[in-house]
Amino acid sequence: MLTPERIWTAALIVIGDEILSGRTQDKNVAQLASWLNVQGIRLVEVRVVGDDSDAIVEAVNALRARHDYLFTTGGIGPTHDDITVDAIARALDVGVEIDPQARAMLSGYYETRGGLTEARLRMARVPAGASLIENRMSGAPGIRHGNIFIMAGVPHITAGMLDSLTGTLEGGHPVLSAQIGCWVAESEIADLLAAVERAHEGCQIGSYPFFREGKTGANFVVRSTDAQALQGCIADLGAALERGGWPVFPGGI
Amino acid sequence: MLTPERIWTAALIVIGDEILSGRTQDKNVAQLASWLNVQGIRLVEVRVVGDDSDAIVEAVNALRARHDYLFTTGGIGPTHDDITVDAIARALDVGVEIDPQARAMLSGYYETRGGLTEARLRMARVPAGASLIENRMSGAPGIRHGNIFIMAGVPHITAGMLDSLTGTLEGGHPVLSAQIGCWVAESEIADLLAAVERAHEGCQIGSYPFFREGKTGANFVVRSTDAQALQGCIADLGAALERGGWPVFPGGI
Repeated sequence: MLTPERIWTAALIVIGDEILSGRTQDKNVAQLASWLNVQGIRLVEVRVVGDDSDAIVEAVNALRARHDYLFTTGGIGPTHDDITVDAIARALDVGVEIDPQARAMLSGYYETRGGLTEARLRMARVPAGASLIENRMSGAPGIRHGNIFIMAGVPHITAGMLDSLTGTLEGGHPVLSAQIGCWVAESEIADLLAAVERAHEGCQIGSYPFFREGKTGANFVVRSTDAQALQGCIADLGAALERGGWPVFPGGI
Repeated sequence: MLTPERIWTAALIVIGDEILSGRTQDKNVAQLASWLNVQGIRLVEVRVVGDDSDAIVEAVNALRARHDYLFTTGGIGPTHDDITVDAIARALDVGVEIDPQARAMLSGYYETRGGLTEARLRMARVPAGASLIENRMSGAPGIRHGNIFIMAGVPHITAGMLDSLTGTLEGGHPVLSAQIGCWVAESEIADLLAAVERAHEGCQIGSYPFFREGKTGANFVVRSTDAQALQGCIADLGAALERGGWPVFPGGI
């Protein structure tokens, strides 16, 4: 029996017409999810909304109350379609102000790049009461307001912002995972998977089929916050598959 | 002045722990978005939820009432973590039943693949009152119930299901788009972009910066349902950029 533990949760709002039009393939969901796992925080919900103030306000207010942390990506650049800061300020019912530290950062960054224009100064605007998240990649910082973390849309800039937040957020035990693969149709072993999961409390088994080289296979991912339980579950799963006549590939196929 | 038109909207629920854990990079958002554009339907909201019945029920009931169409991807396979059909039946307050046509399809598909086991028969289960969506790739069909379209998680299977739905859903005018690129920091031309957008009713301009070969650039996407308005807007934008001394790359960089 595993000790019940406090589970820390997060949500993400991906903001941008370019994701909903299919123009841009989002990469921030997977990137944030992986980073949160290491911090011991579970990403439990993502919403993608367009560059639409009402949609952002609704999503922010629904999710910030429900989770320990809320992240947003996108819409914090200098152009007219960058409305994230204004929308979040509206959701929080606070004003928007120029952050002096952000202004200084931008001023330094643009000193050799044509100077701090009015458009660029937009990137120093924050919801009143915010602090900044370091951006090691370009001039404009991310923004923290309470439990809300406002990040860039460009994935490598968000990566840098996450890097600067590493280790600063309270979390629980990280979710550990282990994977094995097998050339088997998941439908052949559905009962086996369910039985192994039932026998290992605190472990979840996910089944992810694929089709390669004209053959059907699946990878099985066991997740748990308990390293010993995880090892026991993946070992039992591997043994059960081998007994059934399906050779197992540790680490997945 | 453009004639106001009925805008058809859709939402998508991506279902699966593997997306929220960062293990799997979702590809169905971009795929569905592109397909919907061609049908004249706008994807206006996406939610990603885990393999969690309550989360699925809440998202289904929030979104099905709000949009013309609701799509889901993921969780319709044969294993214990495939709970989409049961959760949607719960959301609709209907029972789950074996669809005879789906059973026949699966029976045929598995005839030479080890037979229709109980686990495989799970894939013939539908919320009562549903019809089927053809799956040209593998045995298990997608499911339609009212305005809800229940699709596979594996992208190439979903692609086949979308293909079989092409032209069958009522939509409005497709959103057309045109793109130009420029080696310019978007912050230098933010005012220009806003002014061109204001001058072209019915057009939206999106600005998507990038960093390549050590240089800063941006692509600008104009979207409109009116082909003539779109052409006028992109031509004016290009001319304004050229006048400012920034050579334009038609089609984007």
